[in-house]
Amino acid sequence: MYFRQIFHSPSHSIGYLLADMSACDAVLIDPLPEQSELLLALLQERDLRLLYVLRTHMHPPEQGHCGELCRFTGAELVVGTNSPYDGPTQRKGHGETVVFGNEVLRVLATPGHTPDSVCFLWRDRLFCGDTLEIGGCSLDADQSDPGRLYDSVTQRLFLLPGETLMFPGHDFNGRTVSTIAEERHRNAAFSASSREHFLTANARQPARPGPRAPSPHVRQ
Amino acid sequence: MYFRQIFHSPSHSIGYLLADMSACDAVLIDPLPEQSELLLALLQERDLRLLYVLRTHMHPPEQGHCGELCRFTGAELVVGTNSPYDGPTQRKGHGETVVFGNEVLRVLATPGHTPDSVCFLWRDRLFCGDTLEIGGCSLDADQSDPGRLYDSVTQRLFLLPGETLMFPGHDFNGRTVSTIAEERHRNAAFSASSREHFLTANARQPARPGPRAPSPHVRQ
Repeated sequence: MYFRQIFHSPSHSIGYLLADMSACDAVLIDPLPEQSELLLALLQERDLRLLYVLRTHMHPPEQGHCGELCRFTGAELVVGTNSPYDGPTQRKGHGETVVFGNEVLRVLATPGHTPDSVCFLWRDRLFCGDTLEIGGCSLDADQSDPGRLYDSVTQRLFLLPGETLMFPGHDFNGRTVSTIAEERHRNAAFSASSREHFLTANARQPARPGPRAPSPHVRQ
Repeated sequence: MYFRQIFHSPSHSIGYLLADMSACDAVLIDPLPEQSELLLALLQERDLRLLYVLRTHMHPPEQGHCGELCRFTGAELVVGTNSPYDGPTQRKGHGETVVFGNEVLRVLATPGHTPDSVCFLWRDRLFCGDTLEIGGCSLDADQSDPGRLYDSVTQRLFLLPGETLMFPGHDFNGRTVSTIAEERHRNAAFSASSREHFLTANARQPARPGPRAPSPHVRQ
């Protein structure tokens, strides 16, 4: 197996390259289009064939579909069932799998940060995108829904084995890996709060008449 | 494969259980004797045969050799070449391996916290004992040697691939996993200091005539 974290300092984003080295088959999770050159170099370095580009979610107008990278490598884009993206793509629902070589990656539907958000589980590694941050959560997207996020995290991600390694979509605060047990106990957004408290803390301000107020951005 | 972190709240210690599930062979890294009952239950739960108890280091008088657990399970104790322990044991030097089922674990000699300190590398997971803490280091043992610790960490551990998962011997501050890349960049004990600065910051006070002063304990 081959596993790389790919950092993008300006946006604090982390993409992931996973490969089955015996089959030379690879997938990328949440790569950034502006890193295509680096990504191609990493694939070429190990003679890897890119089968899929996986997105945990997309923000309108369909940021990060990596069309050029897919065209260049022949890779297919894989997104969650509820993705708003209407280009060529494979849509995967909760529990469906993505196979590369002899490796299997499972899709977990985790709506909340966006309606189309999914996580990917590979062996004991969970790739969260923006569904769960280390020590917090992100409700800053226009379509974020605190109730659905709370349910996705507490009733889906936190039920995974405690040792599951949790890889976030961003390295805010410089941290790049956690475990489900650690997040269960220490994530301030969830560990100390009830669902009601979480909803209250993350409620959007009601819209006022007159000029439209800017969207509230909430980060724990 | 099977991987468990075993926490001991009073001492903030973390032990590790690794197993090859197809062969049903297991090893334990730095288990605590007072957790023997739990450890046996975890082994029995999965029908695992404990082959080795691995110690990253021991503090006099040979704490944690887990004699009872070894006798009960038939497991052998594995320690670094320089271990002061004179009971029945396998001594492993730098680069030597420990095999369980089809899994291979490699010994890295990393003296500094104690003269006998070793780390264990299994796949892309590094088990550090007290050689490296998340965000710091430990020089609180009587035989700690700051210069050797600095060299072990910077010239041996920090040369591993950045994605290597770093599992510490303690969950001080509640963190239970990091990566080598993260420690290279963010570990305050090493990232901001030269070897000279590290030695100066961690120098022991010279002994004074008269009643013996207590040993200094330094933690970054």
